[in-house]
Amino acid sequence: MARIVQKFGGTSVGDLERIRNVAQRVKLCVEAGNQVAVVVSAMAGTTNRLIEWANQIGSMHDAREYDTIVSTGEQISVGLLSIALQNIGVDARSWLGWQIPFKTDDFHSAARIEEINAKEIIYRLNKGQVAVVAGFQGIAPDGRISTLGRGGSDTSAVALAAAIDADRCDIFTDVEGVYTTDPRIMPKARKLDSITFEEMLEMASAGARVLQTRSVAMAMRHSVNLQVLSSFKESPGTLVQNEEKQMEKQKVSGIAYSAEEAKVTVVGLPDKPGIAARIFGALAEIHINVDMIVQSASTDSEKTDITFSLARSDLWDAVKSIKNIKEELDFERLDHDDNIAKVSVIGTAMRTQPGIAKRMFEVLSDKQINMQVISTSEIKISVLIQADYTELAVRSLHDAFGLDRPD
Amino acid sequence: MARIVQKFGGTSVGDLERIRNVAQRVKLCVEAGNQVAVVVSAMAGTTNRLIEWANQIGSMHDAREYDTIVSTGEQISVGLLSIALQNIGVDARSWLGWQIPFKTDDFHSAARIEEINAKEIIYRLNKGQVAVVAGFQGIAPDGRISTLGRGGSDTSAVALAAAIDADRCDIFTDVEGVYTTDPRIMPKARKLDSITFEEMLEMASAGARVLQTRSVAMAMRHSVNLQVLSSFKESPGTLVQNEEKQMEKQKVSGIAYSAEEAKVTVVGLPDKPGIAARIFGALAEIHINVDMIVQSASTDSEKTDITFSLARSDLWDAVKSIKNIKEELDFERLDHDDNIAKVSVIGTAMRTQPGIAKRMFEVLSDKQINMQVISTSEIKISVLIQADYTELAVRSLHDAFGLDRPD
Repeated sequence: MARIVQKFGGTSVGDLERIRNVAQRVKLCVEAGNQVAVVVSAMAGTTNRLIEWANQIGSMHDAREYDTIVSTGEQISVGLLSIALQNIGVDARSWLGWQIPFKTDDFHSAARIEEINAKEIIYRLNKGQVAVVAGFQGIAPDGRISTLGRGGSDTSAVALAAAIDADRCDIFTDVEGVYTTDPRIMPKARKLDSITFEEMLEMASAGARVLQTRSVAMAMRHSVNLQVLSSFKESPGTLVQNEEKQMEKQKVSGIAYSAEEAKVTVVGLPDKPGIAARIFGALAEIHINVDMIVQSASTDSEKTDITFSLARSDLWDAVKSIKNIKEELDFERLDHDDNIAKVSVIGTAMRTQPGIAKRMFEVLSDKQINMQVISTSEIKISVLIQADYTELAVRSLHDAFGLDRPD
Repeated sequence: MARIVQKFGGTSVGDLERIRNVAQRVKLCVEAGNQVAVVVSAMAGTTNRLIEWANQIGSMHDAREYDTIVSTGEQISVGLLSIALQNIGVDARSWLGWQIPFKTDDFHSAARIEEINAKEIIYRLNKGQVAVVAGFQGIAPDGRISTLGRGGSDTSAVALAAAIDADRCDIFTDVEGVYTTDPRIMPKARKLDSITFEEMLEMASAGARVLQTRSVAMAMRHSVNLQVLSSFKESPGTLVQNEEKQMEKQKVSGIAYSAEEAKVTVVGLPDKPGIAARIFGALAEIHINVDMIVQSASTDSEKTDITFSLARSDLWDAVKSIKNIKEELDFERLDHDDNIAKVSVIGTAMRTQPGIAKRMFEVLSDKQINMQVISTSEIKISVLIQADYTELAVRSLHDAFGLDRPD
């Protein structure tokens, strides 16, 4: 017998028929002798409609009222799933964030979970009752409903798994697991049987959308075994787990990409301390996340260039913000390019196998793809390239590292 | 300065534009120097859709899950109205049933309010904040959301008014107040400036749909001054209050009717004790409410007839249930008629003025309308007639008692 958390996203509970399917999957897991807690999102589309209403009714937002409104989406789906389970003979009850409680901080609409009191849920799991838990929501110190921000339901599931000491947390999605790369642009992409937390984190932040970065980080911190699998097919998914549980691996795990990037270069800055802090301080003030940053070695002793990448949607705000402090910064020119992609090779194998970076650069060079910026971590190499070459780069790298063949 | 509860129903908050209008009305009341608590229903249509989902997902109902689902309707509207108020400069916050709390019994989906802890709301009202309270919902002893059943928002408003010791509870509806009779069938119907609780109770239970019987009874018990008024027009409505506040009245207050009645006669019952209890016990078991009951004087010493009226929608269940115990009851025949209306003349004036019943019977007789069953209370006379004569009866009585002329 194992204790399992199952998480179903908005598409999986998109209508009543799909909610019934979810109930059947939960029942199978219960009949296999497991204790089951289910975390559900709002029915697909619901949250967007609620957010739209909240935005339309008044431009000035009280985040506490916003949370009161948008949290109803999950409230409806836990009620419906509980009824569906009861109707096929499974003992189940719904739990809202405030009922458990899922205590969060008071950053309404982007709250962080601080503590979960799962005593009553564990008591009932031991008695065989399925807990149907509303994802995405909690209760803030002010006694009001809080929400965790987009993708928060994955985080709810992982946090619950940690709190009830679950053997596994299964994240059901509309894909069959984590792939070596995006199957939409590389038909030879292969579903991975397993991947480490670190690799998954890099994959998520490098553009693979299968899991929220935040939930992976939390799973890593609490050593929660994650599994990503399809809510529509009955096949094993991808296990995300600690590195020590992985067999020794011979190659990289995956190629991730993000085609929605932009690049800014501030040319001819005085080469003196505090300049970088001033630029990125100005961007942080308007909540722009900068990804890769490169400062060129000065060719003479007086001037330097700073290049950074960011989400394409933030480009114009960033450019405006830097132009506003042109006199203070005293730079010569501002270049920008909104047609940039980031391609990353990811794998813990890099720790032990030298030469992966060299191989990557050779492959791109062979295809005449120019690398504009390079950035590396212990288990990842990312490059910025012209967005037009994204598919070519991903396919060539996937082939070159033999990712279509099982380990 | 007064402390006022304003209640807006589903039509009044039917879309974002109407919610903004409600916010303006609340603002006017605040600017007039009042402390204001607002009780709102779900946006029109929402509750029906949620109930439909809950019914469709599974025939077996867990009322606690049902309450979790349907209570989201009010949760959304309090959030939206609070944002709308904040956006026009009115300090406001939303309150869900469990946050106040509105403590109810554990009869989920038809709960009764047991206790309201309004301390925090009163504290904030005194500081000038508007309380936007979700109608229809509370929290049961099991710590889960409960709902009050249909029309529960009126009851929430009256209960809140009692708990915060409000000077008045304004019920905003899509009509302008309480009328002497239904203006749709009697164009000469006149809006009443005031009416007593007792009269309003009789009006409500006799078919006038402007207020739920339950909320009127609660207002009477706690001496809450009610006002019924239009949410779309700016004009005074009808005050519902204690009789001692009313000026002495010369005539009846109104003519109410219900055209959706049916009648059953059990013919030739043995005239012995316990027979009536057996019949109405069987109906109570299947939750059928019986309205008027008449037992005919026996013409011989052995047999008797029992006639009763009930909602037309319950007729076939009632007939089946009585037929099931035919042998035990030993009656001769079961007659039923599903084309029946109830017409009532209502007014505290009856207490002091004799002859109102006589006048009513004369009017109906003049119009050749046959009265099938008669029932009276201290301030009401009701008769059952063929439904086809409903409009004729209502109009003739309205004219005969001079209800189109102000007191």
